[in-house]
Amino acid sequence: MKLYEALAEELADSIGRKVLKPGDRLPSVRQASAERRVSPSTVFQAYYLLEARGLVESRPRSGYYVTRAAVARPPEPEQASRPDGESRQVDVSELVFEVLQSTMAHDVVPFGSAFPSPLLFPLARLGRVMATTAPHIDPWSTVDDLTPGNAELRRQIALRYLLGGMQVDADGIVVTNGALEALNLCISAVTSPGDAVLVESPCFYATLQILERRRLHAIEVPTHPREGIDLDAVETAISRHRPRACWVMSNFQNPLGASMPVQRKRELVELLARHGIPLVEDDVYAELYFGRERPVPAKAFDREGLVMHCSSFSKSLAPGHRIGWVAGGRFTARIARHKLTTTLNTNVPSQLALSHYLQRGGFDRHLRRLRRTLAEQQAQCLAAVGRHFPRGTRVTRPAGGYFLWLELPEGTDALAVQRRAAAEGISVAPGPMFSASRGFRHCLRLNCGHPLDARAQAALATLGRLSALSS
Amino acid sequence: MKLYEALAEELADSIGRKVLKPGDRLPSVRQASAERRVSPSTVFQAYYLLEARGLVESRPRSGYYVTRAAVARPPEPEQASRPDGESRQVDVSELVFEVLQSTMAHDVVPFGSAFPSPLLFPLARLGRVMATTAPHIDPWSTVDDLTPGNAELRRQIALRYLLGGMQVDADGIVVTNGALEALNLCISAVTSPGDAVLVESPCFYATLQILERRRLHAIEVPTHPREGIDLDAVETAISRHRPRACWVMSNFQNPLGASMPVQRKRELVELLARHGIPLVEDDVYAELYFGRERPVPAKAFDREGLVMHCSSFSKSLAPGHRIGWVAGGRFTARIARHKLTTTLNTNVPSQLALSHYLQRGGFDRHLRRLRRTLAEQQAQCLAAVGRHFPRGTRVTRPAGGYFLWLELPEGTDALAVQRRAAAEGISVAPGPMFSASRGFRHCLRLNCGHPLDARAQAALATLGRLSALSS
Repeated sequence: MKLYEALAEELADSIGRKVLKPGDRLPSVRQASAERRVSPSTVFQAYYLLEARGLVESRPRSGYYVTRAAVARPPEPEQASRPDGESRQVDVSELVFEVLQSTMAHDVVPFGSAFPSPLLFPLARLGRVMATTAPHIDPWSTVDDLTPGNAELRRQIALRYLLGGMQVDADGIVVTNGALEALNLCISAVTSPGDAVLVESPCFYATLQILERRRLHAIEVPTHPREGIDLDAVETAISRHRPRACWVMSNFQNPLGASMPVQRKRELVELLARHGIPLVEDDVYAELYFGRERPVPAKAFDREGLVMHCSSFSKSLAPGHRIGWVAGGRFTARIARHKLTTTLNTNVPSQLALSHYLQRGGFDRHLRRLRRTLAEQQAQCLAAVGRHFPRGTRVTRPAGGYFLWLELPEGTDALAVQRRAAAEGISVAPGPMFSASRGFRHCLRLNCGHPLDARAQAALATLGRLSALSS
Repeated sequence: MKLYEALAEELADSIGRKVLKPGDRLPSVRQASAERRVSPSTVFQAYYLLEARGLVESRPRSGYYVTRAAVARPPEPEQASRPDGESRQVDVSELVFEVLQSTMAHDVVPFGSAFPSPLLFPLARLGRVMATTAPHIDPWSTVDDLTPGNAELRRQIALRYLLGGMQVDADGIVVTNGALEALNLCISAVTSPGDAVLVESPCFYATLQILERRRLHAIEVPTHPREGIDLDAVETAISRHRPRACWVMSNFQNPLGASMPVQRKRELVELLARHGIPLVEDDVYAELYFGRERPVPAKAFDREGLVMHCSSFSKSLAPGHRIGWVAGGRFTARIARHKLTTTLNTNVPSQLALSHYLQRGGFDRHLRRLRRTLAEQQAQCLAAVGRHFPRGTRVTRPAGGYFLWLELPEGTDALAVQRRAAAEGISVAPGPMFSASRGFRHCLRLNCGHPLDARAQAALATLGRLSALSS
């Protein structure tokens, strides 16, 4: 944890314990800096983070004040998960599809959706870029931009790694149909049917579906709701099951929102490297951080080429364009070949339009706006959960992304909540979707990527009521 | 064979045996119609087909004359292939990638390529359509057009089936990242690792690569160079190996160019249905027919929903857009679900642009031009092969598509031809790429989808010379 994060946590704690009350003014940046012997910039970053989380608000020429919303915030989950450590065949796909079916209808309140609101993205602006590039497409680009993909786009992606302080060669990047294809290609590059794969507990249901489809076994590893996968448990699972791969979301993990501290990322990479185990890193929410700095991926510590870093523009810029990529390390060529026999190539007009958009700038301005919106929506959601859900409910407060993970009071049946909510036109993602062992029966994942309008507010109240009923 | 095709064959035969010589005038349509007691339209269609194949040319107000090119045409292969009938694990992928590597460079003469010239397609016009649709994209379409895909595009595809006399419901169609993804989804919808699949001998190398990747076994079935897969052999293979699927290209098969006669298609579908075996039908060249009528796919005879018909716009309209589809019969839902866990969705801007292009018309006009060009290029290639290749070379003369299949004199080493040609900057696809048992060692596939300019002519002469040397 960085210094400013520690300071923010401490202040948040004071707010939680009502040492600081709504309306109280925080010490000025200069004052706090002097008192705590940290730089003014550290204080500022901590305040900025608290503001992004809706705990404080800045008033012009006056300072930072504790918000009213802050007090209503329910406590955070504190315990790492405790899966049984078995390696098991996965069988969740039917359940997942059943639940997703209920999120498809247009008039459903989309708390169960995996996507943020498409209105958050500059699709019209991208469309105008496309209007300038598409009519002048070089016919030979349909051949030249074959997998691994358009050279300029890969250069732009490499540049963004460089901005984050990482050296990734454009030749080490394969453009894919979204991150989902990248993840599929990675896992099949390093496993065979029957192999075991380490996953977080809970983990993204698509991960489980992919393992199921490929007849891989899942080993669920204890994962902390704030700090991610447990390294001791990873080590134990390695010696017990000899897994062929490890699959994690190191930043703003879906569904927990957990982000591994930098040191833990480094140690995970080193631990896996000692055993020669490839790491599939799903980092699709990397750009959606609420703090001041883009979080470093585990890939940053990869010396052996064992880390395959997957991401996309679908959650940050261009949903529907299906442009993702993987920095595949030593597996890059194998990944590219697999793509050549499955989808051959990624849409060329979108590759061109995105590379032009990235060249012209504007991406970072859009991202700042997007992050602010998501942070605000998260704060509103947190406050509403505090108002409407039963006592004893715990909620994560991720430092990025657009999911909240709710631990309802023990004994609550999340699947019953989901069914009852569906009947009232509200979707939500129940915990068992995120576990090969169908655990997390009292948990829910809430999507805060849509504006919390009156209808959504009412829907949250309904979800709270149904949660109280379903125990 | 249709009446006009039979007549065209007979005349082609007379030209081949020099009963009709270069410069000879064919009987007038009226005269031939009276003599042979067929309708003038049948004669006209036969002459049209001969013209498309470069055997005759029409001179205004004078009639049809045998061309000079006609005499040089080498004979056709006549024998069906004779694979050993074993079920075997596939191991061709390395060879295929090695050969494809040599086709990638820009300055290579692309006789080994799988793609026609990108200059044959109205990419600029499509780009202008995209320029009108992309800026006004409805953000919600990124959600609504999720797999199975954009509703209007699926309706347009269903309409084209209807034009061909087939009733395919838009709900029975899944839009995919090109036909290659469709084929992957189909085969994995109906097989598990270790299962056996019937394929043509020879067959498209990507088919073999997909089977290899999925650890499926290939049973190569005797296939006639003009009439496609042998049904008696299919029946024998079924009783011997109990395959879980059959995979064919019923029209302009890659690499042979064979097209199954209508009756054979019907019988294949009925035979497979009796054994409950699904048929994966790869029909990507369907629009590239040289005759007067679009060939019917096997899917037209599917009463049980066992035929999965895969096609795309990549070879007919829009290379690089990666828009394909499958009419999946009873497997449609399973295919859509599999796509949701592998690539999730198909590029939305291209789905919209294509559906607008199809609505506005112009596709059929473009196709007529495209077919004429491909037929002309085929005729030129055939004549050049006749001039430059060793005596005893046989060449298919497909009624559509853009491939020629050459049987070189027995003992010729096609892999040696390929290697030597690569050293001279010419790519070509050697026979063993198309066979799980590495057969067809004396065969080559030639791509005629590029203009036969002076450089390509010289390259063909070189290929002919190398073929004579490599025995």
